[in-house]
Amino acid sequence: MSDHPESNDHALAESDFPVLYLKRGEDRRLRAGHLWVFSNEVDTKLSPLNQFQPGEPVVIAANNGKAIGSGYVNPNSLICARLVDRQMHVIDRSLVTHRLNVALALRERLYREPYYRLVYGESDGLPGLTVDRFDDVLVAQATTAGMERLREEIDQSLIKVLKPRSIVWKNDSSARGMEQLGSEVLCSLGDMPSELLVQEGEQRFEIDVSGGQKTGWFYDQRANRELLLPLVKGARVLDLFSYVGAWGVRAAAAGAEFVTCVDASADAVKRVERNAELNAVSDRLEAVKLDAFDFLRNARAARRHWDIVIVDPPAFVKRKKDFKEGALAYRRINEAAMQVLARDGLLVSASCSYHMSRSALLEAIQAGARHLDRQVQVIAQLQQSADHPLQAAIAETEYLKGFLCRVLPA
Amino acid sequence: MSDHPESNDHALAESDFPVLYLKRGEDRRLRAGHLWVFSNEVDTKLSPLNQFQPGEPVVIAANNGKAIGSGYVNPNSLICARLVDRQMHVIDRSLVTHRLNVALALRERLYREPYYRLVYGESDGLPGLTVDRFDDVLVAQATTAGMERLREEIDQSLIKVLKPRSIVWKNDSSARGMEQLGSEVLCSLGDMPSELLVQEGEQRFEIDVSGGQKTGWFYDQRANRELLLPLVKGARVLDLFSYVGAWGVRAAAAGAEFVTCVDASADAVKRVERNAELNAVSDRLEAVKLDAFDFLRNARAARRHWDIVIVDPPAFVKRKKDFKEGALAYRRINEAAMQVLARDGLLVSASCSYHMSRSALLEAIQAGARHLDRQVQVIAQLQQSADHPLQAAIAETEYLKGFLCRVLPA
Repeated sequence: MSDHPESNDHALAESDFPVLYLKRGEDRRLRAGHLWVFSNEVDTKLSPLNQFQPGEPVVIAANNGKAIGSGYVNPNSLICARLVDRQMHVIDRSLVTHRLNVALALRERLYREPYYRLVYGESDGLPGLTVDRFDDVLVAQATTAGMERLREEIDQSLIKVLKPRSIVWKNDSSARGMEQLGSEVLCSLGDMPSELLVQEGEQRFEIDVSGGQKTGWFYDQRANRELLLPLVKGARVLDLFSYVGAWGVRAAAAGAEFVTCVDASADAVKRVERNAELNAVSDRLEAVKLDAFDFLRNARAARRHWDIVIVDPPAFVKRKKDFKEGALAYRRINEAAMQVLARDGLLVSASCSYHMSRSALLEAIQAGARHLDRQVQVIAQLQQSADHPLQAAIAETEYLKGFLCRVLPA
Repeated sequence: MSDHPESNDHALAESDFPVLYLKRGEDRRLRAGHLWVFSNEVDTKLSPLNQFQPGEPVVIAANNGKAIGSGYVNPNSLICARLVDRQMHVIDRSLVTHRLNVALALRERLYREPYYRLVYGESDGLPGLTVDRFDDVLVAQATTAGMERLREEIDQSLIKVLKPRSIVWKNDSSARGMEQLGSEVLCSLGDMPSELLVQEGEQRFEIDVSGGQKTGWFYDQRANRELLLPLVKGARVLDLFSYVGAWGVRAAAAGAEFVTCVDASADAVKRVERNAELNAVSDRLEAVKLDAFDFLRNARAARRHWDIVIVDPPAFVKRKKDFKEGALAYRRINEAAMQVLARDGLLVSASCSYHMSRSALLEAIQAGARHLDRQVQVIAQLQQSADHPLQAAIAETEYLKGFLCRVLPA
């Protein structure tokens, strides 16, 4: 550090962490509030990346040696470091516990029942970590080597703050590949719950944590479901890509006349049926095992119509280079959905693809509508629920967008 | 039309309307769903603009003579024509009545009480017309010559569909200047109501239709207020640019500990106090007549703090060329608001400037936060209420954006 006389306003010299130096000017994004360092932004003469271990704690410093904060590094990842604390605290159990308490305070302010995303990575000051809470069962995911390395400290913090019965690490996200981390599902506290109950609104759902998608439940769509529910009374509702039936079962419970859930997975369909039973709406709900595109083709041929169609597919644009093809898929599915909409029907259309912007999704919907000579009134824009807050400086924390559309003749 | 052998698939030849021809290729935006024609898109050789009367009905046709639809023209406006009907119907009382019924059907689906924006211009197929409903009093605005010319037909349609007691034309919007229309406020049915009651949620508000801003009430923020209300219990709330107290009075009624409303207008302050009385919250609400920037400066000097600060200013960016200055004003007001926020406080920050994009507003907030060494979690994005639907092909129908932010130490 003696080469850098301007350093430093933090206790950098006292730190035991090695220093990751950025190239000149590459500290700007971090100073503006972002937390990511890309590998091409590192001054590899001052701090060769291969000197670091994956997940190792570091001090991140500007080229002039001024410390920006503490964080962790992964030389094997394009995002080679993440800033964790601007006050230069060591990333230990004490810091994680503090951040968990801050995250918990928000959720307790927002929700009466203990079912929510408790930690949403960067937005909650814990880059690379997500934790979903299902009452006394916690399902965590570490998507970076830095968080992987901290697993024991995180377990201890979660136990201290929440006294859970079980902690499941569902470390099978594809994002882990980018950090060269393997895939595993393990239980670090208590027993692995095979079936788990989640409560949303007045409804209860049985989900599969260890085998299901993501952590087993999509809390991110909760606010959007609750936006739709006041409008479903007496309606025929089609829930495409239904997974375990969150939209469909809640719609039936909110007074829909009849709900059709469609999913390509036999397991999902079985769970939809089970969840319909659990909530006493089996008499007004059917679950169909079929690809959504195929279902819509058949339904159109049979001249079936619904008053509300929900299009909540998995990400069609997983990587930036898939944009064109994925955008076309969004257009096709939304156009096909509009073809089975009754007159003055409602289309709920969402995308969880980060690379599909809000405006691109609306363009896809509008292009489909024009092709069918319909017009679209957007009566609400959909967004990820409040337990998935955006970090205001990190555009990448926003991924879920959608529209509640009224579809009229042109 | 005989010059254009390819025309036409509609009953164009039978129409009595003159034809407005677009330049080659300039029909593309209309075909994609937009409704506006800019004056530089008109083929003025085929159809000189000065041959039209302001507000005159026209057929809008592509350069090859193919009709796109019926609409109206204003040679004095940059937006020189607006498409109204792709089926080429004459824009008469019958068409207006139909569109009103379609608009009403949406609002009746959304709201239990007859208080809402009934017609939101282009989005409801009636370009240039807005109508706010206050039970049996309707407050209309015509912002184009085409709608101005149709006023009697609109009156007849409104009477037929809604049987109102009064219809007020509050034709004093600055947008009228762009169409070279004068400013006037008149009552075309019944008596001019000097005081009017509006109900929002469980609260009632006395508003001033003839003298107040816009139509006297901002229905566009209703959904955003209702997003905030569950979070106000026990909080100290500061409502900046309060106007007649919609945010503040509703917050007090929802259990805020104490509310401070600030507005630079003496009349607005008087109405806040009256509305606090009407809703029995006067003991927990004060109204201060002061510029919001001045108020925040004083409050900071006095080390006053609030748990929730609402920043809902008038448009700071009225024209595109005011962007830089306006964006700076958004940054300044939000930064000053954060300075009087208590620890872990909530900032509600909105912008009704069309030219201030959602991302620009978030950047302004984030820049202010970084300057104060705070971080911002966006727990919800705000949007105009469902009675101000977007027309999916017309980006200009979206103007209101905002963020519900949790502000934390960095």
